[in-house]
Amino acid sequence: MQYHLNGFKPGNYQIPDSVREPASPPPIVEMPKEVDVLIVGCGPAGLALARQLSEFADITTCIVEQKSGPLLFGQADGISCRTMEIMKAFNSSELVKETYQLHQNAFWEPDTEHPENIKRTHKVADARLGLSEFTHGVVNQARLHDLLLEGMESSVAHLIPHYNRRLLELDVDANLTQDLNAYPISATFERNDATQSAKVETVRAKYVVGCDGARSAVRRNLSINLEGDSANKAWGVMDVLLVTDFPDIRVKSFIQSKDNGAVMLVPREGGYLVRLYVELDLLDKDQRASNLDLSVEDIIAKAQLIMNPYKLDVKEVAWWSIYEVGQRVADRFDDRPLDNAENLIPRAFVAGDACHTHSPKGGWGLNTSLPDTFNLGWKLAAVLQGKAQPELLQTYTTERRKVAHMLINADREMSALVATRPSAKNGHSQSKTDTADIEKFIARQNGFIAGTSIQYDPSYLCTGQENQHLADGFKIGQRFHSAEAARISDGRPQHLGHLNKADGRWRIFVFGSEQNPVDPTSDSSKLINFLACSADSPVNKYTPSGSDIDSVIDVYAVFQQQGISIEEMPDYLWPAKGKYGLRDYEKVFCSIKERDIFEQREINRAQGCMVVVRPDQHIATILPLDAYQELSEFFGKFMIE
Amino acid sequence: MQYHLNGFKPGNYQIPDSVREPASPPPIVEMPKEVDVLIVGCGPAGLALARQLSEFADITTCIVEQKSGPLLFGQADGISCRTMEIMKAFNSSELVKETYQLHQNAFWEPDTEHPENIKRTHKVADARLGLSEFTHGVVNQARLHDLLLEGMESSVAHLIPHYNRRLLELDVDANLTQDLNAYPISATFERNDATQSAKVETVRAKYVVGCDGARSAVRRNLSINLEGDSANKAWGVMDVLLVTDFPDIRVKSFIQSKDNGAVMLVPREGGYLVRLYVELDLLDKDQRASNLDLSVEDIIAKAQLIMNPYKLDVKEVAWWSIYEVGQRVADRFDDRPLDNAENLIPRAFVAGDACHTHSPKGGWGLNTSLPDTFNLGWKLAAVLQGKAQPELLQTYTTERRKVAHMLINADREMSALVATRPSAKNGHSQSKTDTADIEKFIARQNGFIAGTSIQYDPSYLCTGQENQHLADGFKIGQRFHSAEAARISDGRPQHLGHLNKADGRWRIFVFGSEQNPVDPTSDSSKLINFLACSADSPVNKYTPSGSDIDSVIDVYAVFQQQGISIEEMPDYLWPAKGKYGLRDYEKVFCSIKERDIFEQREINRAQGCMVVVRPDQHIATILPLDAYQELSEFFGKFMIE
Repeated sequence: MQYHLNGFKPGNYQIPDSVREPASPPPIVEMPKEVDVLIVGCGPAGLALARQLSEFADITTCIVEQKSGPLLFGQADGISCRTMEIMKAFNSSELVKETYQLHQNAFWEPDTEHPENIKRTHKVADARLGLSEFTHGVVNQARLHDLLLEGMESSVAHLIPHYNRRLLELDVDANLTQDLNAYPISATFERNDATQSAKVETVRAKYVVGCDGARSAVRRNLSINLEGDSANKAWGVMDVLLVTDFPDIRVKSFIQSKDNGAVMLVPREGGYLVRLYVELDLLDKDQRASNLDLSVEDIIAKAQLIMNPYKLDVKEVAWWSIYEVGQRVADRFDDRPLDNAENLIPRAFVAGDACHTHSPKGGWGLNTSLPDTFNLGWKLAAVLQGKAQPELLQTYTTERRKVAHMLINADREMSALVATRPSAKNGHSQSKTDTADIEKFIARQNGFIAGTSIQYDPSYLCTGQENQHLADGFKIGQRFHSAEAARISDGRPQHLGHLNKADGRWRIFVFGSEQNPVDPTSDSSKLINFLACSADSPVNKYTPSGSDIDSVIDVYAVFQQQGISIEEMPDYLWPAKGKYGLRDYEKVFCSIKERDIFEQREINRAQGCMVVVRPDQHIATILPLDAYQELSEFFGKFMIE
Repeated sequence: MQYHLNGFKPGNYQIPDSVREPASPPPIVEMPKEVDVLIVGCGPAGLALARQLSEFADITTCIVEQKSGPLLFGQADGISCRTMEIMKAFNSSELVKETYQLHQNAFWEPDTEHPENIKRTHKVADARLGLSEFTHGVVNQARLHDLLLEGMESSVAHLIPHYNRRLLELDVDANLTQDLNAYPISATFERNDATQSAKVETVRAKYVVGCDGARSAVRRNLSINLEGDSANKAWGVMDVLLVTDFPDIRVKSFIQSKDNGAVMLVPREGGYLVRLYVELDLLDKDQRASNLDLSVEDIIAKAQLIMNPYKLDVKEVAWWSIYEVGQRVADRFDDRPLDNAENLIPRAFVAGDACHTHSPKGGWGLNTSLPDTFNLGWKLAAVLQGKAQPELLQTYTTERRKVAHMLINADREMSALVATRPSAKNGHSQSKTDTADIEKFIARQNGFIAGTSIQYDPSYLCTGQENQHLADGFKIGQRFHSAEAARISDGRPQHLGHLNKADGRWRIFVFGSEQNPVDPTSDSSKLINFLACSADSPVNKYTPSGSDIDSVIDVYAVFQQQGISIEEMPDYLWPAKGKYGLRDYEKVFCSIKERDIFEQREINRAQGCMVVVRPDQHIATILPLDAYQELSEFFGKFMIE
């Protein structure tokens, strides 16, 4: 897809440039007085949480944004493999179609013969290819927002943000926080639209989540502090339409000049737009990049210096900004005091940039923020619906704070590597221009950059590490790495990972052993019988009567044997559902010869195993096929009968 | 994607069952007085034509429908590979996501031991897999309409149908038909909505296309006759939600009973819905199926008899109908009298069911109707825009009438094969139950069924058959069979077929020879030089001054050599475009080692070749790289300078 040829235009890229218009903001309606969850901020974290909660008709959510409407341009652009996977779980795979895929990295250094010129040292295939069935890519953050907004609006909750509301005050009544039925949160907002600029509205909520960015008002109100380095380096960033003889203009390029600093170049969606990150000067202590008084012309001039001898003829600037590099993480991710955290149920949270700030270069902001609330969303829903113990909410902080620390460490390393002059102001005149270090960093960190190797530490939600060898390709604590199998009812190949929809359900994948699955005495048959019939079966324990059998825990069987017919399977694997008792034919699979999931995911063929997948697609546990009691105990730790 | 569990619901399947609502029809606005093209009928033929014409801001189109709004259910369901390709050309690849893919065919016959029961003889992989990069599938015709309607509305023409209009009279003024600037068409419509039921509107048009179905009023007004067999066999068709122990309920099944007739079963989108075609009785001459006075209960009872011993418990009927099988083709596809056709420019056309009627079982109606107007649309546009000679419009009839005849021949054969009792009423008591014949038919006709082997006869639009050996995998007259190559500017694999968008442009694919393409004396360099610089170059001759260089003829180069960099290419292959002169980096490709397009499409490696592709994706000609004159002559036959 090519667009922006005659100038950048925000809006839906499916619509031709000449007639594309950004969507109008929704009409302003009064905010509700009382909701289950109040979300402050319509960035990736806020919208992903709202999108997740919009899946549940019995949960009321209110999402509030200070700006006057949806984002139109600027900010993040890189979409990691993992973000693609999550968007697929939200049924928004349009994103895949719209992103500009990055397949190569190019590295440029000073030409040894003419060091005033840059020269390409090499170009390599992007190391992230193959880590997921989705390719990472580049697209305007606004399009990701649009897709989440569309999903929210067309959901059962019909959820639409309240724009033009500035948070004045947030109060968490500590006397009420341990009463699950109470509304301990009270938030006051001021309308900042033209018509009713003075109007104040108050919303009471059971839970609040601050997704309101680096200068989070929620964080400030909760007295949560950011810890870490302050900024000492300024960068310029700009999205431009330009004409150039630089040959790698459509390849992600790391460019280091001898004396003038570095540029990181990212080609963007539509085939013409390009983002440039341009290294500027070191900052004095406490100096803010915004005070440097630089214009976009200064950034362009700097980029031109760095990219000599190539010419940059910038025709249009779609968006630009100056930022300082600094890595900070919030000391707490929720309202529990640090000295009494284990005993309390959190009721207020911060997520996304509100709890981790860093440089935008790695494309990690959006791609960490969105998984933050993908982790939190299902937990909030499960507690609100009375399905899970409220202590489950504590695990948001433990799981995501670790990721935030990994993030700022990676960003600190990357920022130092990409900048050519880390210490120029400190008197070191020697430029550092070894792009090989960047390449090594990328190769080592590619799973983290892609978001696919993020792994939650062992806990009651990520357990059974002693059984990891039963399926080495499904790492406990990491996201379920999708692979294909063939549906036995119709022969259709199916990516099993795409069955893990963002609908709050748990999933158990039963990978059969070498025993014939049609034999009722086989280990998989016996396990299915346990799940279907035993009073100890978590399926029976936690599924409300009258609900579909797969509405809380959704069970799939995957066999290594081919040629099984659906009518040979126990009823439980083609269950009757819904008001008519229609049979669901999409639960049983067999491996595909030429891309055998047992081989791809290193599943023990002799023994098989169960893989239990959390509602956020992370693998909770792996168990032997006869581990009935362990399975019951696993769910028993946090589920409510 | 699973839906319809608790009952069939029309509308956008991306929206959950419980909140899905069909889109409301647009408000009724007055019809225009004068348009370039008047389209009567909002079926697949009419909408595909409107969608095609909506690509052009300088063409005015009016599309009219008798019904009160968009289709909601029923009618066609099978989407062929070729229809998928065309929808991709319209940028509507959502269709791929929504269709239920058919991967297998099952065949059932009377059990030899208990002939009162049916028994599966075998199940095979669908023979169409691999004929296209798209898999054929099943989806409600209404969804295909929706996607075309959305594309029309968000196009530069912002085209929306006029519903609630019944054609009263159509007049073609024979005195004006040979004057291209005249409006020889005069059509009178009566509003049939509740508010203004008597109101009559008249539209004058340069061209009219009747896409108004088997009982076409346009066809009747043009005195065009249908030729062929009258019906003598009735079938019932129903879309149902049911519970059954029939194991192949999710597989396309051909079922033949001993004494009770045949059923063809097609699983449908959403995982629960099933379509059954049920053989009913022979009709007497001139008897209409609609007069049989059968209810859906009768059809269900018949299906139950045929599928014994399996039980069909129908819970809901989403749609049903009874139809008779008959194969007819219009004697003319346009308004030219048969005895003077060659000398006249046609101004009125019929397309789709208006010119070919047949049984719905093969899924060929929609899949022939949509390509009918995909053939006509670009020709109408080219003539209206003054780019092509008006005689081009004559080729619609010659090219599509051949396809219509192939269609009714295939349908006649298929209908006879699927019916078990072709002559029961004629006293032949012997049932015909050999499903092997059906399987053989499918294997033989799979390219036709998939729509991928449709081939237009040699003409000035499909020529150069003596050069076919230069690229045996691109059949002159057939659609461009897509294959992948890597873009040299960024390494991204690209399906070359997807570059053939439905935007009215011609495309030339230059497949390089063994000579080094970077060498300015290589045959591909010389050809590019001719295209870019020669006064005889069709690119220079037919591109209006001030337009982008690729706006009429879009040229791509594909090389078998890897490692070429974009800056080594002549400017013409990364041309400056648009108001800023931004460079287009998406014109040059090289083959991909593990799926080499030169090998896949049997391109002569020593010589290379040019493949010229029509705006409807059919291959117009194949030429040697040095055939400059032949290339000029090819375009000279119908293009206007």
